[in-house]
Amino acid sequence: MRNKTILLASRPQGTPTLDNFKFEEREVPALQEGQVLLKALYVSVDPYMRGRMSDADSYVAPYKVGEPISGGIVAEVVESNTDQFPKGTVVLGNLPWQQYIVHHGNGLRKINPAIAPLSYHLGILGMPGLTAYIGLLHIGAPKAGDTVVVSGAAGAVGTVVGQIAKLKGCRVVGIAGSDDKTSYLKQELGFDATINYKTATDLKAAIKEACPDGVDVYFDNVGGEISDAVYLNLNNFSRIAICGQIAYYNSTSVPTGMRVEPILLKRKAMMKGFIVSDYAADFESAAEDLAKWVQEGKLQYQETIMEGFDNIPTAFLGLFSGQNTGKQLVKVAAREG
Amino acid sequence: MRNKTILLASRPQGTPTLDNFKFEEREVPALQEGQVLLKALYVSVDPYMRGRMSDADSYVAPYKVGEPISGGIVAEVVESNTDQFPKGTVVLGNLPWQQYIVHHGNGLRKINPAIAPLSYHLGILGMPGLTAYIGLLHIGAPKAGDTVVVSGAAGAVGTVVGQIAKLKGCRVVGIAGSDDKTSYLKQELGFDATINYKTATDLKAAIKEACPDGVDVYFDNVGGEISDAVYLNLNNFSRIAICGQIAYYNSTSVPTGMRVEPILLKRKAMMKGFIVSDYAADFESAAEDLAKWVQEGKLQYQETIMEGFDNIPTAFLGLFSGQNTGKQLVKVAAREG
Repeated sequence: MRNKTILLASRPQGTPTLDNFKFEEREVPALQEGQVLLKALYVSVDPYMRGRMSDADSYVAPYKVGEPISGGIVAEVVESNTDQFPKGTVVLGNLPWQQYIVHHGNGLRKINPAIAPLSYHLGILGMPGLTAYIGLLHIGAPKAGDTVVVSGAAGAVGTVVGQIAKLKGCRVVGIAGSDDKTSYLKQELGFDATINYKTATDLKAAIKEACPDGVDVYFDNVGGEISDAVYLNLNNFSRIAICGQIAYYNSTSVPTGMRVEPILLKRKAMMKGFIVSDYAADFESAAEDLAKWVQEGKLQYQETIMEGFDNIPTAFLGLFSGQNTGKQLVKVAAREG
Repeated sequence: MRNKTILLASRPQGTPTLDNFKFEEREVPALQEGQVLLKALYVSVDPYMRGRMSDADSYVAPYKVGEPISGGIVAEVVESNTDQFPKGTVVLGNLPWQQYIVHHGNGLRKINPAIAPLSYHLGILGMPGLTAYIGLLHIGAPKAGDTVVVSGAAGAVGTVVGQIAKLKGCRVVGIAGSDDKTSYLKQELGFDATINYKTATDLKAAIKEACPDGVDVYFDNVGGEISDAVYLNLNNFSRIAICGQIAYYNSTSVPTGMRVEPILLKRKAMMKGFIVSDYAADFESAAEDLAKWVQEGKLQYQETIMEGFDNIPTAFLGLFSGQNTGKQLVKVAAREG
């Protein structure tokens, strides 16, 4: 059977390009006892994957040149040699970018198609949703009445951060890169104020205006000068959850800029980097809350879905120019069962 | 009675100089009912006072131009109109830089001269000791076997940080600015390794060598490139207590340099600024531990004592060129009682 796969062709210097990816056709091997044949339905593309394309020392193992790139995928069992995953089961797993995948079943999680659209399990009910929940509530620890600022606010994580903060009674300010995005945040998701960082002439002043009582919690997805402007408005005892630093992912030298440390001292503030996978013990209760809020209509959720396996690299590259509103996915195939 | 006082003559631009101070003679007013006449014995000079000399927005109120500078002083009651503080009592207070001070008694703390030399109450048993204790144990939270790095290691706070970390079973590495200081830390205080940042050719490599298992806790008094070199050796889940940032206290523009945020993310690390005065609820138990360790000989303590009221500004300025080993004080007068 014909099966396309996407390999890492070379490690990017700076911003990745299509040249860093290579398409290849491979034979799908015959199923052994205990194995399943998976058909990829939805493929997740995420900013953290940029780190894995380099061989720098990082918290996740780098992809290998000449081997398939992998990530979160929702797939359907289309052939099965195990009772554990009958034909027609939909699963979530960390899987290679391939149309079909032969798999032993370990690490696959069954998805209940009744609770939400299948793609939600790569977003609000998956890693991005859990990242928002845990970073905001465990590190940011907002109290009702606090002002919460989130950067990358229109992304898969940021949209959930802002909505949970609203559910907790906070004033929520979102920073994003287009008027379409800020309108969406304000009108659809109920953010109290928004800032378009691309058109703001004085970011520090814009944040001060949006946060008249200062900033108590900052959920940071981006870093760089956007974050500097937030730091200059921090309150005493504020908390900063560092979730992403997309401003630096493509930088080829050690990032420099304004020092945050003197501000942390002056404001007695706390800053912590985190990766959601370190909080596995909290996933179950967090996922329950998220599913409940989605079903009750308290969490809105938006996806940008590109169609076609061949478009996976393009969808990934779009993350770095801010193409997506909400979670960026690629739909590779329709469900058969 | 003749009484000298030291006023803030002008706000410093950059590094303070003697010109920023002004000596004046004032009459000592007659005692009212309920008041005491204090004679200053020991005057504390501390880096944080630099911040109060500016009128920048800060966590402590700025000194006023034309008014006396104030800080921690150990003084003796030489006349008393209150039973609460009989003549001969030794007290600790936040007091103006004057030889004699008329005081209503509020906020003065009695000192027991039997437990330790009087000057210790401005150091290891006072704010610097409490700062070390609380910053290290509450924020750094070292576990036995952890590697703890302290910058400004030979200062009033740093010497206590390192010794407490040793008591807790950690590997302790101190960074200081002379071979005399590093020898003292290693030979007298039992630090496991030391780095002279003025002679090290490659600070990052020097820290790596001194911390073969990486850095779990960093207690930072200095900021700047010394801290950058530590950041580059942080372990996953490390903790950074920001106590001081003396590298920037005299800077006249917004400090810039290497970004720490991407490292905090990569290392899932936590950084928190703190000021000991926010932890008043913990002072009593902390002070008990410190006094016990001093009396048991488990905490060594060193002071640099300059003599004479007129030398207070000089002693203060010396803090910024690293003149002192241990706590810098000025002895103004001998005890009468």
